[in-house]
Amino acid sequence: MIKTDGCLFIISAPSGTGKTSLVRALLQSNPNLALSISHTTRPPRPGEINGRDYHFVTTETFREMQLNGEFIESAEVYGNLYGTSQQWVNKIISSGQDILLEIDCQGAQQIRRLFPQTVGIFIIPPSVEVLATRLKTRAQDNPEIIQKRLAAAREEISHIAEYDYVIINDILEHALSDLASIVKAEHLKQNRQLINCSELIAQFS
Amino acid sequence: MIKTDGCLFIISAPSGTGKTSLVRALLQSNPNLALSISHTTRPPRPGEINGRDYHFVTTETFREMQLNGEFIESAEVYGNLYGTSQQWVNKIISSGQDILLEIDCQGAQQIRRLFPQTVGIFIIPPSVEVLATRLKTRAQDNPEIIQKRLAAAREEISHIAEYDYVIINDILEHALSDLASIVKAEHLKQNRQLINCSELIAQFS
Repeated sequence: MIKTDGCLFIISAPSGTGKTSLVRALLQSNPNLALSISHTTRPPRPGEINGRDYHFVTTETFREMQLNGEFIESAEVYGNLYGTSQQWVNKIISSGQDILLEIDCQGAQQIRRLFPQTVGIFIIPPSVEVLATRLKTRAQDNPEIIQKRLAAAREEISHIAEYDYVIINDILEHALSDLASIVKAEHLKQNRQLINCSELIAQFS
Repeated sequence: MIKTDGCLFIISAPSGTGKTSLVRALLQSNPNLALSISHTTRPPRPGEINGRDYHFVTTETFREMQLNGEFIESAEVYGNLYGTSQQWVNKIISSGQDILLEIDCQGAQQIRRLFPQTVGIFIIPPSVEVLATRLKTRAQDNPEIIQKRLAAAREEISHIAEYDYVIINDILEHALSDLASIVKAEHLKQNRQLINCSELIAQFS
């Protein structure tokens, strides 16, 4: 049976939009979706586990991988390096499984150049006030970082038109339902279905 | 507040695919969706109500409306005439409500020419056998009509590539969930969201 490649979904959102909770909830409800785990030089936050949240590597290792062309995209955010392994993306996609990539607009641009069929989803907070409040409750962030992130949020949101879909994350369950609908609808698109249902359609020709 | 027009969804499916049950279930779960009620010269089937299922009119009335350019699309199917009122479509869409149009591929082609933003959804049965069985259980249809409809199903399905999405109606609940996801995802598309969320996005600029 002929099967299409998996879908590649990119999710971008300003820091503090609740993207990570949303993505975790989606992954729990959809076993056909694999989360891409980035390599990063940023130190782990409390509770983060190497190999689950990120592959934590030294700057030296990261630069070496970069020189070997192992990253499909890489970016520097707040002075830390992030990258996604191309080998892993190709393997998962060609097995028919979907991939979810949580990256910023710089990374999204790089991915789209290599995979034009990428589906980009942008998550926005319901208001500036809500975003500021969410950033403040992150205990490990200091006021200077909060201001830096609000400015970064403005910069990220200025790239919203580069994405295919926009979701407002006000109530988590609603945003989750929106996200799940997009993933489902993408699989029902005619170009995918004509391949996946080719045997069924052939019965009628 | 600026609001986009409602979405115009076209649903086509060979007779016997279960489209009508599917559409009824979708309408019950989504109050923002209005079903277009066609004018037709075909006689009512048992249980059909004038003004709910169709506007049943004489051939003379239908031809007069056609001459006055009142139909956005019209078609002859099995010797009966069907048409959709343009005035009604414009009124609903511009109020921000979505419309669901159940029409065949001929009608769909006409609508797409007038409304290029139309979202076309094609429903297929899970197999030729299932379709044949479904057609046979329709008591009011005779064997000749069944053969005619199977041939018509082949002809309809040959137009599948003209649609944006394809749904297999095997289990009603799954097909309904697919349909609801498409409707939801279409509302989350960036071009719509940039208009509907323009005030929110402006907060970040």
